[in-house]
Amino acid sequence: MEAYLDNAATTKVKPEVMDVVKIAMTEMYGNPSSLHRKGVEVEKSIKEARKIVAKAIGGKDQEIYFTSGGTESNNIAIRGMVEATRRRGNHLITTKIEHPSVLNTFQYLETKGCKVTYLDVDKRGFISLQQLEDTIAEDTVLVSIMHVNNETGSIQPIKEISQLIKRRNKEILFHIDAIQSFGKIQFNVEEIQLDGLSISGHKIHGPKGIGALYIKKGVKVKPIVTGGGHELGIRPGTENVPGIFGLGEAVKLIFTDQNQYIKNISSLKNHFYSWLDNQLEGVTFNSENNDSFAPNILNVSFSGVKSEVLLHSLEGEGVFVSSGSACSSKKRGYSHVLTAMGLKDEQIDSAIRFSFSDTNTIEQLNYALEKIEKHVSYIRKIMKR
Amino acid sequence: MEAYLDNAATTKVKPEVMDVVKIAMTEMYGNPSSLHRKGVEVEKSIKEARKIVAKAIGGKDQEIYFTSGGTESNNIAIRGMVEATRRRGNHLITTKIEHPSVLNTFQYLETKGCKVTYLDVDKRGFISLQQLEDTIAEDTVLVSIMHVNNETGSIQPIKEISQLIKRRNKEILFHIDAIQSFGKIQFNVEEIQLDGLSISGHKIHGPKGIGALYIKKGVKVKPIVTGGGHELGIRPGTENVPGIFGLGEAVKLIFTDQNQYIKNISSLKNHFYSWLDNQLEGVTFNSENNDSFAPNILNVSFSGVKSEVLLHSLEGEGVFVSSGSACSSKKRGYSHVLTAMGLKDEQIDSAIRFSFSDTNTIEQLNYALEKIEKHVSYIRKIMKR
Repeated sequence: MEAYLDNAATTKVKPEVMDVVKIAMTEMYGNPSSLHRKGVEVEKSIKEARKIVAKAIGGKDQEIYFTSGGTESNNIAIRGMVEATRRRGNHLITTKIEHPSVLNTFQYLETKGCKVTYLDVDKRGFISLQQLEDTIAEDTVLVSIMHVNNETGSIQPIKEISQLIKRRNKEILFHIDAIQSFGKIQFNVEEIQLDGLSISGHKIHGPKGIGALYIKKGVKVKPIVTGGGHELGIRPGTENVPGIFGLGEAVKLIFTDQNQYIKNISSLKNHFYSWLDNQLEGVTFNSENNDSFAPNILNVSFSGVKSEVLLHSLEGEGVFVSSGSACSSKKRGYSHVLTAMGLKDEQIDSAIRFSFSDTNTIEQLNYALEKIEKHVSYIRKIMKR
Repeated sequence: MEAYLDNAATTKVKPEVMDVVKIAMTEMYGNPSSLHRKGVEVEKSIKEARKIVAKAIGGKDQEIYFTSGGTESNNIAIRGMVEATRRRGNHLITTKIEHPSVLNTFQYLETKGCKVTYLDVDKRGFISLQQLEDTIAEDTVLVSIMHVNNETGSIQPIKEISQLIKRRNKEILFHIDAIQSFGKIQFNVEEIQLDGLSISGHKIHGPKGIGALYIKKGVKVKPIVTGGGHELGIRPGTENVPGIFGLGEAVKLIFTDQNQYIKNISSLKNHFYSWLDNQLEGVTFNSENNDSFAPNILNVSFSGVKSEVLLHSLEGEGVFVSSGSACSSKKRGYSHVLTAMGLKDEQIDSAIRFSFSDTNTIEQLNYALEKIEKHVSYIRKIMKR
């Protein structure tokens, strides 16, 4: 048996998604910019996909731009908004637990003369609204906050954050990295008053190499790539049609009954959490099993068990998990997220992230739990010698 | 019958390419950054694809970076090289017949204080080596030239250009947009002494949304997107694995016997050219049928026949062609390429681009020629009334 429990790193493309990708590659292969039918039919279907994504987040069709993925979406939003608001001010706010595509972009902007405040998080992984409020200054132009953290699943209170920001100064732009939250958490961009939002295809059983960016109508963004004017100039280059069709289909699959989808993944997490909580000693949860955390992510430290050792032991059994985030897991050093939460070294060093999807079954989870119990006991025994 | 003769706009994905894309989406779906087997196996296959691309252009594996397409490759090369050489000088050279992803990037750089020389082309679409030589100055840092023009197929003499540049100043970087030439023209990056080269997947029966960039070892390029350090930091973001596998396979299909491949498309162009030249009155060729032009592109003006009218008439018969470049064909106004060549308005207004691929058959071409004859005569009759 195999149990792929690394769905926050990436997911398997669903059959329905594969079908539309194939159509885009072999039947509807025209260039959407072509004037003839082979192009026009593709352009129409891109519009359909745009509508699906817009509807899913409560935005308008013309507020959705397709990109090459989450990293590019974050870069266009942050660099593009900063470039367009330079005259208003140069103070930016983000958090210490962002994805590298956000953190490194802010660090780049610091080299270009921007002042950046990196908000702390508490032991549970949440920012302080008070610190945010104290940090907002006259020259603050942008706040970018990760909706769901990719390592622990902590959900930042984006509605309260948005209200706080807009109450202080309506001109301050608010962007969220929704790459881990999209689909798994219900939200509406207009209700929250978002100015920008990034999503990625391959985290929701869509293809790799495709993402989307929501930019509220009226908000100005300078593109980071120049070319033929595609995507209203925000993201030029021949459209990744298979990716766009695939993303549209992946979104449709989730949002046809998002309640049920969330129930399904929540029950998997709940099952996994309860078993670990009840059946295994020396388990510390770095994620919680409640509404403040994503329904698909569970970060757990197994005391006395180095995460990399457990990861490879489980791999041998066909159980695939992550130590920290896949996006930067090859880099040496501790997780910057767990470090920002103030976790002890031993706890960070033994942290494993399990991430679930509705493609997982209870049987797979039970199989994984059995193997975890086996290897955790074994590793602990070995280490005691 | 259908005859898709718009292969310079985009191509149909070949079955072998589709197969590896499917594998990447449904079997080898891991994140290449993951530490476990599901990631490691993908990373290995990415290396294979990188090797295939490197070998095809005569470069080294570590000189190939995967991107989201030709537009991004051009942007990373040009913006990235300019940003990295700012201290050496700020004069740049390109031509008037570049793709919008190059032209608009240089125009952007002008707003950032760079001086740009846009080289003229002659009636046949070629730059003057003398003008290039006269233009190179003390503060010239980059020359970027399109290898094969996407509208007419004119092949710039990149070897002579490179020799001229390097003779004047070895420090001047030379980048070529090889998006239309890759596969169709034989060249070797080391022989030509290139510093950068852009290619695209969907022009060679690979997927849309994938491209590659060659950067000569030692040449510094500042990335335009910041993130998790993928592609040695030159192009961060989770790799478009299906795209990379697909590009590798598409390149393999061509380069297994590139001579034969070029022969095949040349013979199609030759057949088409000869028929038009011999059988139809009032035909002006804006491309030539010789080694100075790409073997797959033929730009033709039919006197008295507006290109858009002919394009849509042919579309009704299942014959798909282009008026100008698909990348900007939706924009009003005349082709900037044919304009730079000094063609008369009437000739530009009646120009049609036919672009062939080895997936086309002689039967398809004959079918298209028959329909061209029919509609050209018909339109001319109507116009005379």
